[in-house]
Amino acid sequence: MERPASRAAIAPFLAMEMAREAGARAAAGESIVRFDVGQPWVGAPAKAIEAVRAALGRETLGYTDALGSPALREALATHYRERYGVEVAPARIAIATGASGAFILAFLALFDTGARVAMAAPGYPPYRHILTALGMRAAIAEASVADRLQLTPDHLRELAAKEAIDGVLVASPANPTGAMLTPAEKHALAETARALGAPLICDEIYHGLTYGADATTALKADPDAIIVSSFSKYWAMTGWRVGWLVVPDHLIGAVERLAQNLTVSPPHVSQIAALGALQATDECEARRAILAENRAALLAALPRLGFTLAAPADGAFYLLVDIGAHSADSLSFCRRALAEAGVAMTAGIDFDETRGHRWVRLSYARDPAEVADGIARLERWLAR
Amino acid sequence: MERPASRAAIAPFLAMEMAREAGARAAAGESIVRFDVGQPWVGAPAKAIEAVRAALGRETLGYTDALGSPALREALATHYRERYGVEVAPARIAIATGASGAFILAFLALFDTGARVAMAAPGYPPYRHILTALGMRAAIAEASVADRLQLTPDHLRELAAKEAIDGVLVASPANPTGAMLTPAEKHALAETARALGAPLICDEIYHGLTYGADATTALKADPDAIIVSSFSKYWAMTGWRVGWLVVPDHLIGAVERLAQNLTVSPPHVSQIAALGALQATDECEARRAILAENRAALLAALPRLGFTLAAPADGAFYLLVDIGAHSADSLSFCRRALAEAGVAMTAGIDFDETRGHRWVRLSYARDPAEVADGIARLERWLAR
Repeated sequence: MERPASRAAIAPFLAMEMAREAGARAAAGESIVRFDVGQPWVGAPAKAIEAVRAALGRETLGYTDALGSPALREALATHYRERYGVEVAPARIAIATGASGAFILAFLALFDTGARVAMAAPGYPPYRHILTALGMRAAIAEASVADRLQLTPDHLRELAAKEAIDGVLVASPANPTGAMLTPAEKHALAETARALGAPLICDEIYHGLTYGADATTALKADPDAIIVSSFSKYWAMTGWRVGWLVVPDHLIGAVERLAQNLTVSPPHVSQIAALGALQATDECEARRAILAENRAALLAALPRLGFTLAAPADGAFYLLVDIGAHSADSLSFCRRALAEAGVAMTAGIDFDETRGHRWVRLSYARDPAEVADGIARLERWLAR
Repeated sequence: MERPASRAAIAPFLAMEMAREAGARAAAGESIVRFDVGQPWVGAPAKAIEAVRAALGRETLGYTDALGSPALREALATHYRERYGVEVAPARIAIATGASGAFILAFLALFDTGARVAMAAPGYPPYRHILTALGMRAAIAEASVADRLQLTPDHLRELAAKEAIDGVLVASPANPTGAMLTPAEKHALAETARALGAPLICDEIYHGLTYGADATTALKADPDAIIVSSFSKYWAMTGWRVGWLVVPDHLIGAVERLAQNLTVSPPHVSQIAALGALQATDECEARRAILAENRAALLAALPRLGFTLAAPADGAFYLLVDIGAHSADSLSFCRRALAEAGVAMTAGIDFDETRGHRWVRLSYARDPAEVADGIARLERWLAR
């Protein structure tokens, strides 16, 4: 019997396994507060759903162009102009099957086998796992609390001193912290990356979900930056699997050939939903206001819970907290919280294999009543 | 300025470029007969659309499990039992983002960098391009007309004599020919592949679309075969991007870890549509009857057109024809047919880089009136 390829020996994404366990308990009738789930508690905005309803009777919904429907690429160019004041030609925008699909296209277009891509720990686990699966490598720098757990130019120089780096991957707002890079930090990272000959990839999937300063696109710091984004978070369309890439002119041909062969087309119906979603700013902003309340409630509760924030939660819908006052083993802490308090959270070890034992990620993309209930449950449980 | 990765220097999928040109002409008001398009002229069955309409108001449509919704995996297990009399545990079925996504998961789960996968020319171009993009290699055997342009055990032995092969990829019905492998041929291929230590992958995406004997699944020839299939063709759901894999028990863990990290989840709405489509056998069979008529009309016209069939068109919705009586350059032949006769067809060079200059693929997945019109246009044009 053949064994799976060695590349497939990547770690499972533990957040998903916890989510499955929490989901199974909920399905069995237990009341579970879901602070683990990395997606909004609501679905696509009403305008997205309306657009889909209208298309269902009218279109055959066959393949679109491999790079996506021209209308959606145009609409995203307008989005960059209106939201950021940045001119991006629609020809540089590739619609992809979620940010996941966008990362696969970007990595394959940019890097050959064995390539080494710099990134910070803590970080979104699939970054390194996608690279491993594709025969590339993650070069991981341990980000410091002083740097808000983000990558710095010093990290890049240190990593490159050991072995050349072929790319740099940052996220702002980041998962699991929500911490953002300032424009000046992005500038400095872009400059150092350029000096090292490594293209800069910026994950902007949580743009729109910020609670202080708005996020600015990395394209302002580096017009040649590769941007990965998606309709999953601000527009609450996770299951629709529609995201996008912005790439420099000289890469779009490679991305298109890869997309033609690897995906044929992103999901058509989801592109129609996305086009509708871009008209739904009022609804999305109302949801952001709810997230802001949830965030404030959780932040206010942290001292009572004995949790401390590991990095500023500027955006996204996460808090990364240090649970050192309670436990040095976040995985067993989360398991007990689920079993004993009915609160699902994500252990930090998915995001940082070493320091993650002291960290837990709380997602507050839930109904406010559930957030209040979760805080009360944790408070009772931890007081015992 | 960085160059794209060398892996991205795969060929464009010419069929798509021709399709774009044909689409642009049609959009500009020209009347174009589309014998080039590799997808049905109709959309998803009514029951699929109904299922989506019902879900839109009711569900948030977030991520499903990485391997797909349990309901769809169960329904496909039932499909294998009812259609083929084969027992497949739902746990062995992975829902994927189209057959394209299924191939990526299968190749990554099975093969490491540098792996060599045997396949026939002519064949579906993305097979070799996906492998190249993923750092693997296609080992291509020139299939003979006597073998209906399909791979044989002799090919496998010849390829393996040069350098070990790590996998074997066949398609039945095949693209671009529609030719099917008999159960005995699949048995022989499976046995030889097993002896060479190479897992057998069978692309069954055109199952259901046959015009003589029904297709049987390769699982009957080799219970450990990896099956790739999709809702795109028989169920006419190309743009929905929903397909599946059947893998042996020992591979499902690897496929799941890859899917968690590389895709998070297949499109949720498309899985709901697929579940509805599985109830739409009457509608799909009525459409197959139309395809059978189209096929008969084209086959009857071949002598008048001076085209000869390169392989038996048992299934799918393609004829691969030899145009040697008219031209030794199928690409320029197709370009002229588009410009002068308003008929779009696909040059064979996408499918076979050498012999494809004499071949053209005709897709008959169009409205019967369009098929009749196309035949008449070609007849007039070729008579000049």
